[in-house]
Amino acid sequence: MVGSRTKIGHISLTSHPRGGRVPQPIVWGASDPIERGPVVGSRSDLTKRNVIGAHSGSYALYRALAIAAGQLDPVHRPDLTNTSPAVQVGPHAAWANPERIVSLDPWGHMVSEVFAEQLAAGLDIRPTIAITRARLTIPELTARMRLGALVPDGAILAPTGEVSVTKVAIEPVWYLPGVAARCGIDESALRRSLFEQTGGMFPELVTRSDLKVFLPPIGGMTIYAFGDLAAAPDPARKVACRVHDECNGSDVFGSDICTCRPYLIHGIEECVRTAQEGGLGVIVYNRKEGRALGEVVKFLVYNARKRQPDGDRADAYFERTECVAGVQDMRFQELMPDPLLWLGITRIDRLVSMSNMKFDALIRQGIEVVERVALPDDLIPEDAKVEMEAKKAAGYYAGKVEAGEIGRLPEDLSTIKGRGLVDY
Amino acid sequence: MVGSRTKIGHISLTSHPRGGRVPQPIVWGASDPIERGPVVGSRSDLTKRNVIGAHSGSYALYRALAIAAGQLDPVHRPDLTNTSPAVQVGPHAAWANPERIVSLDPWGHMVSEVFAEQLAAGLDIRPTIAITRARLTIPELTARMRLGALVPDGAILAPTGEVSVTKVAIEPVWYLPGVAARCGIDESALRRSLFEQTGGMFPELVTRSDLKVFLPPIGGMTIYAFGDLAAAPDPARKVACRVHDECNGSDVFGSDICTCRPYLIHGIEECVRTAQEGGLGVIVYNRKEGRALGEVVKFLVYNARKRQPDGDRADAYFERTECVAGVQDMRFQELMPDPLLWLGITRIDRLVSMSNMKFDALIRQGIEVVERVALPDDLIPEDAKVEMEAKKAAGYYAGKVEAGEIGRLPEDLSTIKGRGLVDY
Repeated sequence: MVGSRTKIGHISLTSHPRGGRVPQPIVWGASDPIERGPVVGSRSDLTKRNVIGAHSGSYALYRALAIAAGQLDPVHRPDLTNTSPAVQVGPHAAWANPERIVSLDPWGHMVSEVFAEQLAAGLDIRPTIAITRARLTIPELTARMRLGALVPDGAILAPTGEVSVTKVAIEPVWYLPGVAARCGIDESALRRSLFEQTGGMFPELVTRSDLKVFLPPIGGMTIYAFGDLAAAPDPARKVACRVHDECNGSDVFGSDICTCRPYLIHGIEECVRTAQEGGLGVIVYNRKEGRALGEVVKFLVYNARKRQPDGDRADAYFERTECVAGVQDMRFQELMPDPLLWLGITRIDRLVSMSNMKFDALIRQGIEVVERVALPDDLIPEDAKVEMEAKKAAGYYAGKVEAGEIGRLPEDLSTIKGRGLVDY
Repeated sequence: MVGSRTKIGHISLTSHPRGGRVPQPIVWGASDPIERGPVVGSRSDLTKRNVIGAHSGSYALYRALAIAAGQLDPVHRPDLTNTSPAVQVGPHAAWANPERIVSLDPWGHMVSEVFAEQLAAGLDIRPTIAITRARLTIPELTARMRLGALVPDGAILAPTGEVSVTKVAIEPVWYLPGVAARCGIDESALRRSLFEQTGGMFPELVTRSDLKVFLPPIGGMTIYAFGDLAAAPDPARKVACRVHDECNGSDVFGSDICTCRPYLIHGIEECVRTAQEGGLGVIVYNRKEGRALGEVVKFLVYNARKRQPDGDRADAYFERTECVAGVQDMRFQELMPDPLLWLGITRIDRLVSMSNMKFDALIRQGIEVVERVALPDDLIPEDAKVEMEAKKAAGYYAGKVEAGEIGRLPEDLSTIKGRGLVDY
C-alpha cells in the first residue's frame, strides 16, 4: 500500500486504490451531516479517501518534506482532544444548499462532534476549519482610540486598546460541480483546466469524475469576527464586513504604493464600532497575494508602471498589469461569499470595500448589501493615488455622490502620477 | 497538444510529451547561465518544458481557474518590457555551487538579460524572481523614532518615519537532488514522499527522474533589504538579518499569543540601524504559516493549550503541538539559507533570531554568525511568555549570559501560564 514506510517498493501512480471498495461518497449540501458524510483526505487508510488532494492546502508539501526527512511519522493521527471550536458556528440555512457553499466544508470545524462515531471506529477525519479566540493590539487602532474616534467598552475594545475577537481558519475544500457553476463552465472543463494548467497536478481530476471534492494546494482564509456571531443571521442586528485579499507588502510592511493596510484597518475600526452597537463585524482575510497573481508578477508590474514613458500614471494602471499577467485581476471573487454564507450572513449593512467585483459576487450569491463604505481620502497614501483613481475610473465604488455632483472622477487620469523608481 | 483551447478532445495524462525532442536540460549550479540553461515551466510549447510543476507557486491554481472561466488566454505570454530588476543582485559565488542554492533559481530575476536570445527566438521563459523598490510606513518604527531610538538620516529613514527599501519576491524552484541532500535522504525517496504524501500530486515526480527541477505549489519568499546590497559579500561591512516565518495572526493583526510581529519589527529596527552605519539589513519573509503546519492546525493547538488541565503552560507547550500535528515544527529550516546565499551573504554580524534551528541551518550552509540578538523582554506580550519560555527551555538562544548567572531559564516551566479560552 502506498504511503507506509514499512512497505517500500512498488509505487502506485494513482492516489486511490483501483478496484477496491468504493469509499463513502460525499453528498454535498445534505442537511444531515451523517448523510453528507465526512471529507476524508488523510492517508491513514487509502480505501477511505473520498477526495482528490491532501489536507492543509499548500502545507501538504511541507508535511511531505517532514515525512521524507524522517521527522514525521506518516501514520501519525491527530489527537483532537480539546481542539473543538471556542465559539459555535452554525448550522445555517446555506449549509444545506449545494450551490451556496462550494469552496469550504461547512462541517469542517465540527468533525469531532458530528462524526464522533466514525472517529471512534478508526476513520481518520481531519478538521478543515478551526475556531479560537484572540486578543489583538493594532497600533493604528490604539491611536484612533486616543483621538476619541473609538471608545473603549471594556469587552470588545479594552481601555488598553486591545481588541477581543473570535478567529476562524478555513482550508479550501472545493466541491468541483459547484466551483464549475461559479466559473460558468461545465465540470469536465474545470477539471481539465485545473489539471493541465497546473502542469499536470492530480491526474485524478480528469480520471476520477466520481470524486467530486478537491483539496487544492492553495492558501486558505481567516475570519476575524468582532462581537456576537449569533448576530450574523439576525435581521434585527447589523453586520459590517470587509473581505480583504492579502497584500503582504502593505498589510505587514506598510508599503505606500497601495491602500491595502489602511483599508484593512479602517475595516477593523468599522467592525469594532458595529460590534459595540450590538452587531457583528467580520473581516475575511484571503490568501490571494497580488490579486492572486503572486508577488513576483506584482513586483514586475510595479517596475513596468514606474518605468513606462511619462511614469506611473492612473490611465495606464490596469494596462501594465494586463501586459505582464494577461489579466487585470485573477482573484475570481465568485468563491468569496462562501465564508460569509457559512457564518449565516444574508445581509451586510456596511460593506467596507470599493470593489465592484466583490460587490457583484455578493449580490449574485444572494447577500444583500445595504451600504458601501469608501476609504476616507486622508487614509490614501500619496503614491497609492494612481491605483485608487484608476480603480474608481474602472467602476469601483467612489463614495456617495451628492445631488449636483458628478462623482469624484478626475477629468484626466494621466495627471494622477506616482513616484518613479529613482525616487525611492 | 495539451493546453490549447483550439484543440479539445484528447487529454494527455502526462505534463510532458512522450517520445518528443528532449528539452534543454538544466545544468544546476553551472556558473555560465547559458550552460545552466533557462528554467522553462510555461506551457506555450510543451516540448520545451524542462521542469515538473507550474510557475507562480500556489497561484498556478488561480491561473487555471482564470483560464477555465475564459478570463485569461491560455497562450498569453508576458510582456517583460521595463520589468527588469530595480537593483542588481549577483552573480555571487554561491550561484555556481549546485549544493549551496537548491530552492530558488539564482538567475530567476535576470532572464530578460541572460536569456535575451532565447526569448527573442520565441522561448517562453518566465522570471521567478522580481526586484523592486518600496517605501514603508510602520507605526511601531515611527514611534521608536519619536522616542529617539532611531534617528532619521534622510535616505534610509526619512524624517517622516518612512523607510526606503529594496524588495525581492522569490518563487520556489527546487533542484530535487539538492533538496534531497538537505533532507539527508536520496532523491528517489524525496520524490516518492512528495508524490505520495500530497495525495498523488505530479506523477512525473516518480516517473521522470530526468527532470531534476520542481516548481512546488507553495508560497514563496520576500526579501526586504535596507541599505546597499553591495555590502552583502563585503567583509568590511556589517550585515544584520532576521529570517521571519509568516504568522498572519501576529504580523498583520497583532495577536498577543506570540512574539512574531514584535520580533519582526525589532528586526527591521536592527536592519535600519545597520544600514545607517553603512552595512546591510535583510529581512527574509517566508510563507510558512504556523510553523508550516498551516493555520487550521495552529488554531486547533491554541484551543488544546488553553483547555488542557491546569491551562496554557510553558511545560506543555511543545507537547500540545506534537499531539495534534505529530511534530513540534514543520518549517524545515534547511532550505532557509538559500536567499541569503543568493544575496552573497557569507557572514551575519547580527542575527535577529533566537531559533537554534535557524542558527544551525545557517552554520551548516557555511554562513558565519557573529552575534545573536534576543527579543528584548519589554517587547514580549504577557500571553506570549508561555511560548518564549518553552522555547528557551528547549534550546532557543536566551540572550547573553553574564558571568555568575545561570541563564534566564525559570526553575519550573509549569508556573509560566497564559490566558484561558474564557478570558478573552
